[in-house]
Amino acid sequence: MIQILDHVEKVITLSDKEKEEFLSILQRVELKKKSFLIQPGEKVTSEYYVLRGSLIAYYLDQNDNQHIIQFSVEDWWISDFEAFFSQEPAKLYVQANEDCELLALRNTALDILYQRIPAFERFFRIKTTGTFVSLRKRILSSLQKNGKERYIEFCEQYPRMEKRFPNYYIANYLGLKPESLSRIRKELA
Amino acid sequence: MIQILDHVEKVITLSDKEKEEFLSILQRVELKKKSFLIQPGEKVTSEYYVLRGSLIAYYLDQNDNQHIIQFSVEDWWISDFEAFFSQEPAKLYVQANEDCELLALRNTALDILYQRIPAFERFFRIKTTGTFVSLRKRILSSLQKNGKERYIEFCEQYPRMEKRFPNYYIANYLGLKPESLSRIRKELA
Repeated sequence: MIQILDHVEKVITLSDKEKEEFLSILQRVELKKKSFLIQPGEKVTSEYYVLRGSLIAYYLDQNDNQHIIQFSVEDWWISDFEAFFSQEPAKLYVQANEDCELLALRNTALDILYQRIPAFERFFRIKTTGTFVSLRKRILSSLQKNGKERYIEFCEQYPRMEKRFPNYYIANYLGLKPESLSRIRKELA
Repeated sequence: MIQILDHVEKVITLSDKEKEEFLSILQRVELKKKSFLIQPGEKVTSEYYVLRGSLIAYYLDQNDNQHIIQFSVEDWWISDFEAFFSQEPAKLYVQANEDCELLALRNTALDILYQRIPAFERFFRIKTTGTFVSLRKRILSSLQKNGKERYIEFCEQYPRMEKRFPNYYIANYLGLKPESLSRIRKELA
């Protein structure tokens, strides 16, 4: 679990006592490949830090088309954030792409954490800002860049993702057909 | 300027001295209808609270197609947030839709504010989370709802926007043709 402390201490400084307190509120969760962490309609009371493994968050539309919203690997947070923050039922599936080991942080524990160690306000402000900026970047990329440019940007932005997820997931995320992504990869090879 | 204190105190509590200090770092900015607050390529060093008036943030693609990213009215914040947070050059136009009176908060002043009044970490964490959730909501709406449903959701979510912006701006934001929006409005009238 020590890696989450390194992750937090990139942004804020904690005393030994605060580190212990933070670790004490986290719950370890194991998840087998292909199983679901969150499904639509569920109440979402936790966000999850990835210790090991990888996951996808996706939306399934009325015609059963899958739309991948987020990838997650070690050192990332994942949840249905909209549901987690707004206390509305989940709209997304969050599914393990590999066997996973996660740390769950419950919203009730988080509220107490903010009171007891206000530095976490800063930590999660900066994390949320980063997530927001990535989402905006992705929207603008879809408007300004062609498929090849979007794929190059994706590889630069998420260097550890590209080999861990199937081709069709990455194509889906980038708004490309799988055969277009294969062609782009061959061109770049 | 008192209205920004009401806005902040919906989320955090400040002493009189802290209120004074916060107000002292804000700069009043006036902007005439149609003029630009931010243009692509510029360095973005401030975010802006709207005291009076309305604005749009939009992206202009290679074919000069306008894509409206955000509307803003009284009591909202606006900027090219991606550029503001990531310190990259602006990609968006931010333009006054009516004569505006704004309060600018500079990033350098904000950094000092976080040190001096840490409650603002909480304030902006909660604001950024709200903005992030809205953006996620908008993406999911575009996947799950038809034009009429998106328009109804828009009117519910932004009750003060609908009469202040031209028809073609709202159609653009909702991903509809102006004539489709006119038809939807007639149906609902």
